[in-house]
Amino acid sequence: MREISLTDLDDLACGAAVLGTGGGGDPHIGRLLAASAVREYGPVTLCPLDELPRDAAVLQVAMMGAPTVMVEKLPSIDQVSKAAQALSGYLSSGLTHIACAEAGGVNSLIPVVAAAQLGLPLVDADGMGRAFPEIQMVLPTLYGVRATPMSIADEKGNRVVLDAVDNHWAERLARSATIDMGCSAMIASYAMTGDQARESLVPGSLSLCAELGELVRRARAAHTDPVDAVVTRLGGRRLFTGKVTDVERRTTTGFARGTATLSGMDEDAGGELVLRFQNEYLVAEIDGEARATVPDLICTLDRESGEAVTTEALRFGQRVSVIYAPADPRWHTEEGLALAGPRYFGYDLDPVGAAR
Amino acid sequence: MREISLTDLDDLACGAAVLGTGGGGDPHIGRLLAASAVREYGPVTLCPLDELPRDAAVLQVAMMGAPTVMVEKLPSIDQVSKAAQALSGYLSSGLTHIACAEAGGVNSLIPVVAAAQLGLPLVDADGMGRAFPEIQMVLPTLYGVRATPMSIADEKGNRVVLDAVDNHWAERLARSATIDMGCSAMIASYAMTGDQARESLVPGSLSLCAELGELVRRARAAHTDPVDAVVTRLGGRRLFTGKVTDVERRTTTGFARGTATLSGMDEDAGGELVLRFQNEYLVAEIDGEARATVPDLICTLDRESGEAVTTEALRFGQRVSVIYAPADPRWHTEEGLALAGPRYFGYDLDPVGAAR
Repeated sequence: MREISLTDLDDLACGAAVLGTGGGGDPHIGRLLAASAVREYGPVTLCPLDELPRDAAVLQVAMMGAPTVMVEKLPSIDQVSKAAQALSGYLSSGLTHIACAEAGGVNSLIPVVAAAQLGLPLVDADGMGRAFPEIQMVLPTLYGVRATPMSIADEKGNRVVLDAVDNHWAERLARSATIDMGCSAMIASYAMTGDQARESLVPGSLSLCAELGELVRRARAAHTDPVDAVVTRLGGRRLFTGKVTDVERRTTTGFARGTATLSGMDEDAGGELVLRFQNEYLVAEIDGEARATVPDLICTLDRESGEAVTTEALRFGQRVSVIYAPADPRWHTEEGLALAGPRYFGYDLDPVGAAR
Repeated sequence: MREISLTDLDDLACGAAVLGTGGGGDPHIGRLLAASAVREYGPVTLCPLDELPRDAAVLQVAMMGAPTVMVEKLPSIDQVSKAAQALSGYLSSGLTHIACAEAGGVNSLIPVVAAAQLGLPLVDADGMGRAFPEIQMVLPTLYGVRATPMSIADEKGNRVVLDAVDNHWAERLARSATIDMGCSAMIASYAMTGDQARESLVPGSLSLCAELGELVRRARAAHTDPVDAVVTRLGGRRLFTGKVTDVERRTTTGFARGTATLSGMDEDAGGELVLRFQNEYLVAEIDGEARATVPDLICTLDRESGEAVTTEALRFGQRVSVIYAPADPRWHTEEGLALAGPRYFGYDLDPVGAAR
């Protein structure tokens, strides 16, 4: 894929929802915004990570907040570029490329909006290879790239620019501002050079999203199992198929947090699966035993259509398959686990899933 | 007073504590910082408001947060100028003058530190003629001066720059950042021209602080009543003299909030006085009846020494006089009362005190 045109957006949104691991915000909202931006400004050029010039000036643009709020408080196209523009006075050189902070949900599509509107190429890569809930949880943090200067913009016209002592402080200050702004805001952060981007980002994320979307679409057309197609492409496995019997969800400290419980269906041995989430799924337990955890990917896919179901869309009675997929191996280093392993999120667990 | 030298700082701090109306932070901390800055950088030139050039570029520098925290988390001289420096990239022209946001407590002294360190003259004026707890509560708000661009700096090195849609939003966003920073931070805001400053500030505030301090000092030396000297100079009156019998104080939502109860002493008719505060005193009730309210000044002075007692220093058994003094008349306009009248603070009261 060398550019993103209107016809690519459905596949892109579908695949992004898978890598969003339950979070990352509703990809349909992102698709609508991206479609509107591409219609107005034309297709977006995609730049493979290995073709990025060494001295490129790359900026990540994303939506921050609780996905539960995003579905009710839609951003506008203008708001997206405002965050990037608020930073322009801070960056020593002009921006040359836009990048994705996360591959997942709305945040695979928001950078398409920014790139279209600003007339800049979009790097085919992202900072995680999945979605994670906090600002500092990107591979660039492991390479010493600073999240700040970072800007935060809301739909009312408020703008905040941060210069934090580290990426954890960037998260803390940005989260408070986002909560003030109504739990959903647009951010621009992790300004980096082409060299830094090549070293620290996950290559091919947007192509992978589009490919996953295409696999699901083709499987449905061929009446084969779309969940199998996704699992095979990601080198993962199906953990469970069941019916949603309970969802406990609250929007607190700026996140959508909660648990979802699924009861196994005939075809499965397992009795009950519990998913614990903070925007994204963190732990999947079957009959009380952790069977997959962060940093690996846990995704809920509609059992029939293969469409990913985000945490805020989980409803009683839905029939979903829960799948596991391995994260970028850098997340399994000591530093990676300190940033986004189960213990960071308060679970006294070694990471589960990767070794099997 | 044409300049502020080391010998002026005691009087300045003493008078600033009076106009601080219980808030504005511990003036002794401000005095120590100012003394250290003046010792290092020399005396600060004071510019009378009516001599300010029309095209001057004036910036207010202040400490923001809960006074209860400020006494335990002392700022450094460097931190003061960091807030002003963080804004320099935002201001179209270079700074020419520093001003006080409030006359009161530490915030009459912090601008002395900034002016000394930055080598700029300090305007003999302030934005309130007293201290108030929130960012938007300055007379410049009534004249359409914007609080933002505004910067917030902590002692760790974190910096936030805000561009808010109005001054209430500036308060909201700045308060959250200040709470994250540990309930105490340094801010620079209300960049304005000389013309705007002359129109909207209260003239002569720093001279008045120094004069009040001198009156208290001379009264003590002459064994006359320092409280009388203050009341006469401010055109106010003594409301009550009594012993502190109870102080209920909590640091919440970034403010020091609470009530203080005083029992009347022989010389007074009144039985009990209750002071309600949010950093500053908001309402003084005698035997259940409001006898003074914001926007006018309510101050607690040590009955013997005449030294102002700030809300965080109130202790059981202290003998204090509670005085009323009229606020700048612009606070009694409809717009002024909407900004800082009793109803804004949640009291269903018409302002009391001014008319008597």
